[in-house]
Amino acid sequence: MAGRFGGQGLAGIRDAEGSADARNPEASSPASEGKAPRTARGQRTLRKILDAALEEFGEKGFSEGSIVGITSRARVALGTFYTYFDSKEAVFQEVVRDMSAQVRDHVAPVLAGSADTLEGEGRALISFLEFVRTHREVYRIIDEAEFVDPEGFRKHYVTTADRIAARLQAGKDKGEVVAMESKLATEVEAWALMGMNVFLGLRFGVWGKESPAEVTRIANHLLQSGLRP
Amino acid sequence: MAGRFGGQGLAGIRDAEGSADARNPEASSPASEGKAPRTARGQRTLRKILDAALEEFGEKGFSEGSIVGITSRARVALGTFYTYFDSKEAVFQEVVRDMSAQVRDHVAPVLAGSADTLEGEGRALISFLEFVRTHREVYRIIDEAEFVDPEGFRKHYVTTADRIAARLQAGKDKGEVVAMESKLATEVEAWALMGMNVFLGLRFGVWGKESPAEVTRIANHLLQSGLRP
Repeated sequence: MAGRFGGQGLAGIRDAEGSADARNPEASSPASEGKAPRTARGQRTLRKILDAALEEFGEKGFSEGSIVGITSRARVALGTFYTYFDSKEAVFQEVVRDMSAQVRDHVAPVLAGSADTLEGEGRALISFLEFVRTHREVYRIIDEAEFVDPEGFRKHYVTTADRIAARLQAGKDKGEVVAMESKLATEVEAWALMGMNVFLGLRFGVWGKESPAEVTRIANHLLQSGLRP
Repeated sequence: MAGRFGGQGLAGIRDAEGSADARNPEASSPASEGKAPRTARGQRTLRKILDAALEEFGEKGFSEGSIVGITSRARVALGTFYTYFDSKEAVFQEVVRDMSAQVRDHVAPVLAGSADTLEGEGRALISFLEFVRTHREVYRIIDEAEFVDPEGFRKHYVTTADRIAARLQAGKDKGEVVAMESKLATEVEAWALMGMNVFLGLRFGVWGKESPAEVTRIANHLLQSGLRP
């Protein structure tokens, strides 16, 4: 059973693009290859199409969503869509990348303003819970990417975990985070923390109405001190 | 945006069926309504169909998978399939329920043999990582359920979190787990722990080849003692 999970491993993703953060917007446009907008007006049109595509796929999912649905939400002509994207798959892939970047950019200022590593992770969680409560489609888009755009799905999680690992490593260097001896440790901790956040976001951000601050206080206590009395 | 995440909330699922553990196999058969097998031979045939369906959907996904694919894998006639299930949707729903129960049953003996709550969670994680390494299709099935069988998807996670919460609560009662004052605490901790396990399973069970014992040692250290030095 090769399946979409088998085979290629994680190395391919990192080798191919490095971290998403490192992507140079000049070099790599959100549009399909050779279709990057050349003017500010073109960039605004592309942004309208992406926002409309997010709405369309968020509401209808990939298979029910359509290019016509996207262009009518964006109020642009069908030909304008094809000025920027080759296909429904292409715009979906860009929506995944864009959504992943939106989550990152939403949380970044909170992290930048935190003096302490683990308290920063707590503030990032509150901010994430608030974000998903008003952007419920983020889960549907990223989760559907597992089937529609498996490489984009992996890349979202690999680059997110890499960012968390880099923050934890910086915290270890400053003595704010406990440093285990194993070289695996920071990566395992990063994936554990990301998994916590994703599931707390699903349960308490998308499904529930509990206070993000209260949920975070409990989760961050676990992260900082563990559950052993 | 109603979407599949909006609206019904979690209460409906708990009210409708309680915990999956509480399901009485006499009362609720895996087959479609009115199609429960009446003989031991029938039960074996149903089991063959379910195993074949797991393979079929695990390899091809729901939309590409077919009833004919299932019956030819199971080496049963098409009519035999319809003796037990009404549709492809119905057998997929049962595969989700069955997969969820298989994960639970695989981990249960490990938990039963653990004297200490948090060490038990560690042993359960090793066991889960080993299980997903040989059952990679578990992720594809459960994740695709989000789109094909959203109620089954929710129920899988809600009942899994409920089981973890019950174990943590028992640990709190015995003084083995730190008891926070908030009534939300145990539920948040359970979802955090489940999220950790799901993402560690994806990264280190399905995608990676790292030692389950080593990964678990690191994750369980986080769970027990936290990351604050």
